[in-house]
Amino acid sequence: MREKAFVREVGPRDGIQMVKIILPTAQKLAWCRGAAQAGIRDIEVTSFVPPKVIPQFADAEDVARGALTIEGLRPSVLVPNLRGAERAFALDLPLVNYVLSASEEHNLANVRRSTEDSLQDFARIAAVRDQRAGRRVALGAGVATAFGCTISGAVSEARVVEIAVRLAGMGADEIIIADTVGYADPGQVRRLMSNVIAAVSPLPVICHFHDTRGLGLANVTAALEAGVRGFDASLAGLGGCPFAPGATGNIDTEDTVFLLEQLGFDTGADVEQLVALRREVESWLPGERFSGAIARAGLPKTYRTPAKAAA
Amino acid sequence: MREKAFVREVGPRDGIQMVKIILPTAQKLAWCRGAAQAGIRDIEVTSFVPPKVIPQFADAEDVARGALTIEGLRPSVLVPNLRGAERAFALDLPLVNYVLSASEEHNLANVRRSTEDSLQDFARIAAVRDQRAGRRVALGAGVATAFGCTISGAVSEARVVEIAVRLAGMGADEIIIADTVGYADPGQVRRLMSNVIAAVSPLPVICHFHDTRGLGLANVTAALEAGVRGFDASLAGLGGCPFAPGATGNIDTEDTVFLLEQLGFDTGADVEQLVALRREVESWLPGERFSGAIARAGLPKTYRTPAKAAA
Repeated sequence: MREKAFVREVGPRDGIQMVKIILPTAQKLAWCRGAAQAGIRDIEVTSFVPPKVIPQFADAEDVARGALTIEGLRPSVLVPNLRGAERAFALDLPLVNYVLSASEEHNLANVRRSTEDSLQDFARIAAVRDQRAGRRVALGAGVATAFGCTISGAVSEARVVEIAVRLAGMGADEIIIADTVGYADPGQVRRLMSNVIAAVSPLPVICHFHDTRGLGLANVTAALEAGVRGFDASLAGLGGCPFAPGATGNIDTEDTVFLLEQLGFDTGADVEQLVALRREVESWLPGERFSGAIARAGLPKTYRTPAKAAA
Repeated sequence: MREKAFVREVGPRDGIQMVKIILPTAQKLAWCRGAAQAGIRDIEVTSFVPPKVIPQFADAEDVARGALTIEGLRPSVLVPNLRGAERAFALDLPLVNYVLSASEEHNLANVRRSTEDSLQDFARIAAVRDQRAGRRVALGAGVATAFGCTISGAVSEARVVEIAVRLAGMGADEIIIADTVGYADPGQVRRLMSNVIAAVSPLPVICHFHDTRGLGLANVTAALEAGVRGFDASLAGLGGCPFAPGATGNIDTEDTVFLLEQLGFDTGADVEQLVALRREVESWLPGERFSGAIARAGLPKTYRTPAKAAA
């Protein structure tokens, strides 16, 4: 029995929020369906941000509704505020994610309020969640710029742990620790993730890494050592910061599944089916930058065959 | 006092052995000089392979002689056999590297003899080295396909350890463990490198990783955990397998230095000077594929500033 670890596909949300082409709803749902068929159970399918802010997500309700009908899928959505959360709650989605930034300056630049105000916003979302009738919606709470910030530089690890503890106390069902700008290194990841896990246990803690500086999969490895068993990733490494041209974005779904499986974890996902889906998504987004090594080099002959056994 | 770790630049050897352009000797030496000025002390400067096999190295003697005059540099060369070793010994180089393959099939395909015959070849090289007068030449002994082979698949870890022990017994001064085809994963690296280090201690053990499947820097991190403190790398990630078009080659020198420094090791090298040198090398090799993240994304604001200190 292999230990389980999972990759959550965030391509239909994080991956396409900056691309120039508005994907039709049907293609977004084909992406979700393809990922589910390849064994990815968790997908962040859209964002309930106002359409005038990001036109890509004008069809958020339709995508979310469609995703709820896909067999085997546990769709989640990102919400920027209480208004977005209410839209998500109305659809009875199983998981709703909210993100604030550990860097005060980044939070101000991003949502024009302090980190403390964003924490209070999350508390209100959790209160509304708790008061509604019907199936309990799980809340994911993300801490962005947890490994550093392009505006303010270093971010205190104690502050990240404290924010995670407060989010847990306010009713978060899982904590997402995000390297929003690609600053994390494996030493930092091992240290911070051990501390966050110890502080919010038994809540699940997930990592959201970007591969901006080539350390994405090294950071996944370090997070695994610290006990993390869930990772956000985007097919073909789509996504990324609009202020760093050419910089890669999210870690690549296919490559992350490959790494987890090669390290002996059971992800439930099939790398070759993901690579096939990636080719389809590439055909929808001409001109975008697609990263990832497995799609280029193929799986090694030793995939899932530990060398130890070959003695 | 930070602990030391080093990157050995292998670009002028491994990096250019497959490129179409024959670099003039002056450019090869400018590469070596630039790397030395950026703080890289160890460079594999050329290969003493017969020029008819790889015309790129027809100027091997001139490059090696020139490299010996560069201040602060400890140049090494690769030799394929006793004949090559004798050419290197004649120049009084401080370090001469020999490589054989742990995969029998790969060794046969590569040099048309068994791994055992290659081991005996190394023993003869060591004997000639021991008999010559003058300064003692150090011998590096590399074990290729140590993490798997594109021809035969999995390679037994016990066999790799056994070969390393035999090379040490025959007179190797350092052992290089190479992931020639980009099959290694961090779990395997941690296990195998711990075993190799335990078996050949106190000989230094160096890793030679390729980034074919995106795990190059994850593997460096794992090797550091196992106690490895030296890594082969190539500026701009040059090099790689001619049979895997588009696949990246060696791990990238600039990115590896970045990772080591960020993890708190003292490499003696300057990332920004290496990126400047990389731009020069790129201008000499139009049409080649250059990889690497730091040259694209820049150093993070937190470079060498542990987040812990920011509390």
